[in-house]
Amino acid sequence: MAKTIAVILSGCGRGDGSEIHESVLTLLAIARMGARAACLAPDIMQRQVLNHLTDQVDINEQRNVLVESARIARGEIQNIRDADFSQLDAAIYPGGFGAALNLSDFATKAADCEIQSDVLAFAKHMANAHKPQGFICIAPVMISKIYGAGVLHTIGNDNNTARAINSMGGIHQDCAVDEMILDTKHKVVSSPAYMLAKSITEVEAGITKLVRAVIEMI
Amino acid sequence: MAKTIAVILSGCGRGDGSEIHESVLTLLAIARMGARAACLAPDIMQRQVLNHLTDQVDINEQRNVLVESARIARGEIQNIRDADFSQLDAAIYPGGFGAALNLSDFATKAADCEIQSDVLAFAKHMANAHKPQGFICIAPVMISKIYGAGVLHTIGNDNNTARAINSMGGIHQDCAVDEMILDTKHKVVSSPAYMLAKSITEVEAGITKLVRAVIEMI
Repeated sequence: MAKTIAVILSGCGRGDGSEIHESVLTLLAIARMGARAACLAPDIMQRQVLNHLTDQVDINEQRNVLVESARIARGEIQNIRDADFSQLDAAIYPGGFGAALNLSDFATKAADCEIQSDVLAFAKHMANAHKPQGFICIAPVMISKIYGAGVLHTIGNDNNTARAINSMGGIHQDCAVDEMILDTKHKVVSSPAYMLAKSITEVEAGITKLVRAVIEMI
Repeated sequence: MAKTIAVILSGCGRGDGSEIHESVLTLLAIARMGARAACLAPDIMQRQVLNHLTDQVDINEQRNVLVESARIARGEIQNIRDADFSQLDAAIYPGGFGAALNLSDFATKAADCEIQSDVLAFAKHMANAHKPQGFICIAPVMISKIYGAGVLHTIGNDNNTARAINSMGGIHQDCAVDEMILDTKHKVVSSPAYMLAKSITEVEAGITKLVRAVIEMI
């Protein structure tokens, strides 16, 4: 049986959803390693819709996280609330501002953030089952709210975000763009991707290592 | 100087724009080969907006091709009308239904299709300058309208689409998912990608060969 990795999406676009390159390269790395991806997203409205051409929020537009995530998943996606845990061996959370806007409210609350209830229930269930989870780019800001204090992780080297992570009880460690940070005790992996990357090949390098580490811990 | 490849996008999503995996894997292959991608799209409204979760057209929604394409391009995209040809060595057209809905009207007109005027002007300019162009998935249906009759190309092995290509004067040749068809005289490359692919790794294999062929012909 192929190992199955849940990929948790937060919309479709770096500024209001899942970072598209990070998400696709996660799916690619999973497939290359002979595992299966199962995309999931919460069925909630996006906190905002960003015009990615002008970088302005479109205040007249409303989009649904699950519906937009389905673009990346080519329609093969489920409401995270309906996840069948018996079929899932691990989970990976790509970045994009959607992780801080839709999966959590880190974008506005920083260290006081909360994780969206369906996503939190899912992630805690995976953590409690000791199934490995990987967090990419800005998504690692959710780790302390899932696992509690004391988990080693990274968002690259951004001082403000690292400080917020440490004040939530996390242990932030700087990390190069093409590397990942592994907390073996908690089975948590993180990699900076577009928090640092200047090219799509840099993103691919870090994500490939993250996916390999996740799969090896299953 | 790095070679620069224009990547022509048609929105963001397989059902009403650019196929996201094909687009990202095109950008990845270009970067891996040491070339530079320059994303372009027409500044027009999408012919439709598809809910990719339900597969139903949302008749109340309107989206702009350039604005949605900017999601894949991470904001780094230009109106195709403003393309600086002096900077462009080649062009690649990823698939997705947007190629048949927005870049052309093949989805409704088949062999009687026309290409959107800005896209046609761009593509003809590249063809006349004898710069190589690559067409992925359903995008090859535009080739005969750009080059005229007699160009060898593929959309995989779909009979109806192959027949439409032949009736436009094209020479359709069946092609495996992980291969590409090369017309060296016209410097035109095509590959089936999700016209045939059952996995993202199959898409990557064909697109990588297509991108390599395009770059080698510069």
